[in-house]
Amino acid sequence: MSEFSKTSIISSKAILGKNVVIGDYAKIFDNVVIGDNVQIDDYCQIGHPSILSDKKPVIIGSNSHIRSFSIIYENSEFGPALETGHHVVIREGTMVGENLRVGNFSDIEGDCVIGDYCRFHGYSHIGKGAEIGHFVWIFSLVTATNDPLPPSNAQAPVKIKDGAVVCVGATLMPGSIVGTGAFISAGAQARGDVPAGAVIAGEDGKVVNHVSRLIDFNSGQRHPWMNHYRHVYPNTEEITNRLDSLLNEIMINKMNLKIN
Amino acid sequence: MSEFSKTSIISSKAILGKNVVIGDYAKIFDNVVIGDNVQIDDYCQIGHPSILSDKKPVIIGSNSHIRSFSIIYENSEFGPALETGHHVVIREGTMVGENLRVGNFSDIEGDCVIGDYCRFHGYSHIGKGAEIGHFVWIFSLVTATNDPLPPSNAQAPVKIKDGAVVCVGATLMPGSIVGTGAFISAGAQARGDVPAGAVIAGEDGKVVNHVSRLIDFNSGQRHPWMNHYRHVYPNTEEITNRLDSLLNEIMINKMNLKIN
Amino acid sequence: MSEFSKTSIISSKAILGKNVVIGDYAKIFDNVVIGDNVQIDDYCQIGHPSILSDKKPVIIGSNSHIRSFSIIYENSEFGPALETGHHVVIREGTMVGENLRVGNFSDIEGDCVIGDYCRFHGYSHIGKGAEIGHFVWIFSLVTATNDPLPPSNAQAPVKIKDGAVVCVGATLMPGSIVGTGAFISAGAQARGDVPAGAVIAGEDGKVVNHVSRLIDFNSGQRHPWMNHYRHVYPNTEEITNRLDSLLNEIMINKMNLKIN
Repeated sequence: MSEFSKTSIISSKAILGKNVVIGDYAKIFDNVVIGDNVQIDDYCQIGHPSILSDKKPVIIGSNSHIRSFSIIYENSEFGPALETGHHVVIREGTMVGENLRVGNFSDIEGDCVIGDYCRFHGYSHIGKGAEIGHFVWIFSLVTATNDPLPPSNAQAPVKIKDGAVVCVGATLMPGSIVGTGAFISAGAQARGDVPAGAVIAGEDGKVVNHVSRLIDFNSGQRHPWMNHYRHVYPNTEEITNRLDSLLNEIMINKMNLKIN
Repeated sequence: MSEFSKTSIISSKAILGKNVVIGDYAKIFDNVVIGDNVQIDDYCQIGHPSILSDKKPVIIGSNSHIRSFSIIYENSEFGPALETGHHVVIREGTMVGENLRVGNFSDIEGDCVIGDYCRFHGYSHIGKGAEIGHFVWIFSLVTATNDPLPPSNAQAPVKIKDGAVVCVGATLMPGSIVGTGAFISAGAQARGDVPAGAVIAGEDGKVVNHVSRLIDFNSGQRHPWMNHYRHVYPNTEEITNRLDSLLNEIMINKMNLKIN
Repeated sequence: MSEFSKTSIISSKAILGKNVVIGDYAKIFDNVVIGDNVQIDDYCQIGHPSILSDKKPVIIGSNSHIRSFSIIYENSEFGPALETGHHVVIREGTMVGENLRVGNFSDIEGDCVIGDYCRFHGYSHIGKGAEIGHFVWIFSLVTATNDPLPPSNAQAPVKIKDGAVVCVGATLMPGSIVGTGAFISAGAQARGDVPAGAVIAGEDGKVVNHVSRLIDFNSGQRHPWMNHYRHVYPNTEEITNRLDSLLNEIMINKMNLKIN
């Protein structure tokens, strides 16, 4: 059964599914479609009006959980099981697959495409127009830029392919394309075409290794991460196949990879 | 006509202009003067009490727009057309010219002077005491520091001169003076006197070029940005003259610039 | 006398001390114990439910001040005189000593131990499981990581010992142990064992100096900071002794320190 706080402000135009819970002082604007079993926590703004938008609704998939103080604009679409931390901002024009998780204080600036099962940690800053594949990991304080000559109108948003990992504090420079399963080290600046499975490090964004060389000797775990970390996803045949196929693609590229 | 949400809390001591709109759950404290045609969105705190302040009001210029979850302290003054993103904090003692725009999650720590037409993107972190000129661009996750021996009382806030550009993730080290139209590259650390029109890069903050060497070959645009990006400002004679004069100053310095 | 805003939502199960002030639209959940003379500002969430928690209460020590839009989860314990900025998130399982101060937009991810008199500036990002001593200074945009092979389950949280200073934008790599009174320079990456009193700089986290070599020539102040900055702490015999002892420990190590 749905449960709406008396202190929440819910537009009569919003379309809400079954078993929707809306917290205290939350605000649901007009242009909103919320699926079943969704929890919107205290002080959230869902369907925030956009001056840029062509006024499509925001669609929040079923089984989603939006944590307190988050703002989601109208004119976006999220698959099932979206999960946000606190104080998250997601702007208009964002198309997202299944089960995106976004950490506290993250900012997705809109006009982005994001695939399934992506995980963004806190303070992720995804510039306008980014195209992000499936199973992508973005750690804290990562910036995905888009302007090659700031300030300018020359948009060059980034692309991040399936299974890639971008570590804390890394910057994806304008126009960079992060290949399948590539690994951008903490604080590195990635630019241009990053080959599948490449490890990038440093200010100059050099290829220093293939991800399969990344080993944690204490635990014996070894990259690509599909080897040791797939248990955080649903244990279905579909997911297993998708991850196996990704793993395969990353390993096949190993021989061709040129280390700088 | 003004429009105040019934759920907002507005001090009877606050002085509000014409056509002021105040959103849900917003809070206007005592010590506030708001100009005409200002929009204060949901959950904002305007005129937040300061323990440091000498208790002057905060003055918000006409035609401003403060977005949700923003906090502006008392004892500051903003010219017309201030625009903030969401979750912005601006502390006491901040003197701002016309049409400042500040992105989501930015923090201006007070006792700052900021000129006209500045643009700060998200997570801008402007340390106490910074002096920032006109037409300055600050991109995401930039820090303007102020303590040369942290932690200490030896304040050395930064200065940023007119038309300068500070790119994502750059740090302005204590006491640095960023010259007119200088360009601090992404992730660079600027220190000391940065000459007008200089391009700074890397951890050691070297001068690597003059800004007029920065070209986007795809679009043919070329720095200084007044060449290709002035259309985001009002098309008035005054602005045109100010930008022309800035452009001139930056180019004149080209011959004298020493590249490291 | 206590003072609760009529617009606040306070669980009848929460245990509140004397002279507690609770601001507008704040929310106090069930599992909360608040000491005497505590001020909880507008829009805070105190005792936010945790799915991970073993359901102990959050205990907020006396004389604390939690600023607006902050979220503190249940199952944590804070000594007296906790002070937070705005928009702070502190997750469950955090054990804190006396007089922690945490700046705006900081995120403490839980299962952390933090000693007495620590000072964290804005956007501090303390990963799960960090162990932080007494009198530790963390400046803006510092990340304390914990995963040596992201993404993985191989937890390697960081340790920061008494009196250490971590400057703006520095990253503490997984498993790093920052020694007593060590100084991690702005933007540096610290890794492994950082010796007591060492100054670390750069991407490769080299030891470049002993902290006693850090001098501000303008003011004549000199590290360790206990020399010039102890006036921000209570002037008691206990604090004096603790800081003297720390200073001593840092200086004793000077002769043994190997500079890279």
